[in-house]
Amino acid sequence: MELLTRTLENIQELNQDAMALAKDRLDNLIKPQGSLGRLEDLAIQLSGITGELHPEMDDKAIIVMAASNGICDEGVAAAPSAVTLLMTNFIGGGVSGVRALSKTAGIDVITVDIGVEGEVSEESVLCKKVKHGTDNMAKGPAMSREEAVQAIEIGIEVATEEIKKGRKLLGTGEMGIGNTSTSTAILSILSGLPVEDIVGVGANLPEDQLSKKASVIRTAIEVNNPNPEDILDILAKVGGLDIAGMAGVMIAGAANKVPVVVDGYISTIAALVAERLDSRVKDYLIASHFSYEKGAKAASELLGLDPMLHMEMRLGEGSGAALALPIIEAAAQMSRQMLTFEETGIGAV
Amino acid sequence: MELLTRTLENIQELNQDAMALAKDRLDNLIKPQGSLGRLEDLAIQLSGITGELHPEMDDKAIIVMAASNGICDEGVAAAPSAVTLLMTNFIGGGVSGVRALSKTAGIDVITVDIGVEGEVSEESVLCKKVKHGTDNMAKGPAMSREEAVQAIEIGIEVATEEIKKGRKLLGTGEMGIGNTSTSTAILSILSGLPVEDIVGVGANLPEDQLSKKASVIRTAIEVNNPNPEDILDILAKVGGLDIAGMAGVMIAGAANKVPVVVDGYISTIAALVAERLDSRVKDYLIASHFSYEKGAKAASELLGLDPMLHMEMRLGEGSGAALALPIIEAAAQMSRQMLTFEETGIGAV
Repeated sequence: MELLTRTLENIQELNQDAMALAKDRLDNLIKPQGSLGRLEDLAIQLSGITGELHPEMDDKAIIVMAASNGICDEGVAAAPSAVTLLMTNFIGGGVSGVRALSKTAGIDVITVDIGVEGEVSEESVLCKKVKHGTDNMAKGPAMSREEAVQAIEIGIEVATEEIKKGRKLLGTGEMGIGNTSTSTAILSILSGLPVEDIVGVGANLPEDQLSKKASVIRTAIEVNNPNPEDILDILAKVGGLDIAGMAGVMIAGAANKVPVVVDGYISTIAALVAERLDSRVKDYLIASHFSYEKGAKAASELLGLDPMLHMEMRLGEGSGAALALPIIEAAAQMSRQMLTFEETGIGAV
Repeated sequence: MELLTRTLENIQELNQDAMALAKDRLDNLIKPQGSLGRLEDLAIQLSGITGELHPEMDDKAIIVMAASNGICDEGVAAAPSAVTLLMTNFIGGGVSGVRALSKTAGIDVITVDIGVEGEVSEESVLCKKVKHGTDNMAKGPAMSREEAVQAIEIGIEVATEEIKKGRKLLGTGEMGIGNTSTSTAILSILSGLPVEDIVGVGANLPEDQLSKKASVIRTAIEVNNPNPEDILDILAKVGGLDIAGMAGVMIAGAANKVPVVVDGYISTIAALVAERLDSRVKDYLIASHFSYEKGAKAASELLGLDPMLHMEMRLGEGSGAALALPIIEAAAQMSRQMLTFEETGIGAV
């Protein structure tokens, strides 16, 4: 808990002076004022985060948190829980979706076993296992409060290590069969929305099993009855180690003035967790894509971040973040590469 | 006209066999079927265009068509018409928006003077001037039918030349003060929508001058009375050389089996022109971003292509295309870089 508390204390407000300077330069570039829309908002945010007029975003990495979910015992997912272990090896081995989408953009992928059931064989995967998957939240807490904090702190440690190596822009990703169920449980509690209104098919659960999935999630909430005002209680009782780890990455980014890109549904839930721990974390986050998973819209609205990409993707792994990182890098380059009217020598037109 | 006719005749249907093979591979990759959403649709389209299972999209260029518009005499734009010449030099010189956004993604920018009023001094700009800007369409035709065809054919020539050099993926862009007026005139005729419903502020025209802009556009349509069934008549009478040139680029892409990326509002109008000349052109087009210009939604809906990026941008120059090209390249890489369940040796799960 000490690392988490200390890291949260280190988070500062965005640098308003840097943002004002960035806006001023953007307003004077050789283009109609405001015509680069959200790209300009991004550039201003990046300056607010880094304190620099021309931040470099060239060293980019996606941190993928992999963990198993005990709730799979209840048959809430189309794939067996063992697929989490398989896919963790494949993500680490570089043959999965996030790697394929990261390669041309020069994005590194760091895979973290934060709680996969079984032994990950792929050596590139960082072994940071809190436990061999969470417990079945339909029968009791998914994990203890201490384990939830430990998972957040692992996220903080891994991200801080990457930032020390020179990472300028981080993305989040996850692998964990069953994690649309944990995410939906958290979202239902935080938003007050009924589970049946936000439950989705995840990785192609047959539609006729959706009501059973909703019922299991409702049971998990009822059995554990987490305190809706205590985000760590919610996270521990009906959350997942992957969600906790991603929240830690976001908190570390905020504390170290490094922007962190939210991926899809699960990652947005992690952002909500991080934001409840300290609302300033949100200023350091950038939403990437609109997940096609049903609850994603409600989650984005609750978080208050509007994703830029509409690709109907729902793979996870950080695949949506991978597509957004080059756009964020371009936003950072824009102001540096373009001239102002004054610099061209013609004055404003 | 002969080059245009011949090029249109060369356009073929998408390669259905290649698309079926691509879909089959996508369905067997180590991910839930369909979970990469529109990225999968893109990959299938790229295979249909190229006939290849794993097309390379690494050699990317944006062709920017620059031209002046006589309608500026009526005061429809916030910036003076002379800004077209200035900005053409800046785009050619590499200090404008599209270059800034293209640089990190390794996209080349080819700037074409297809009808700029005055002499472009920047040597990198291809001089293909049809005339020194169009005539004032509020008083008569913007150009002759022959000039419109000549501008389309210049687009075909420039794009074909780039494709011969090895370009695998082309984007379109434009520079031309006044071209939201020409675009809105064309859109109103093609869609049947009243000008006042689709007219927008372009490059920051004050809102209180919008009704005057609409009135000028309506006058241009009334004075010229183009045949709504004859797209070349519409293009010549109330269009622009930039729009014609971009339509030519799209037609050349289709004829040469190279995907062409639509930028924002003006580019979408060019796509509508190209599609009216041959409906198969649309199969070779990919929409990039939702322009913030008012008519863009109606234009995209009429074309039937749904842009993936929602950035509230309205700069033109190909700036939105620049952000989408890396995503399209990633879509092409996805299927090549990811393994199928069979290739991993575990079979389907």
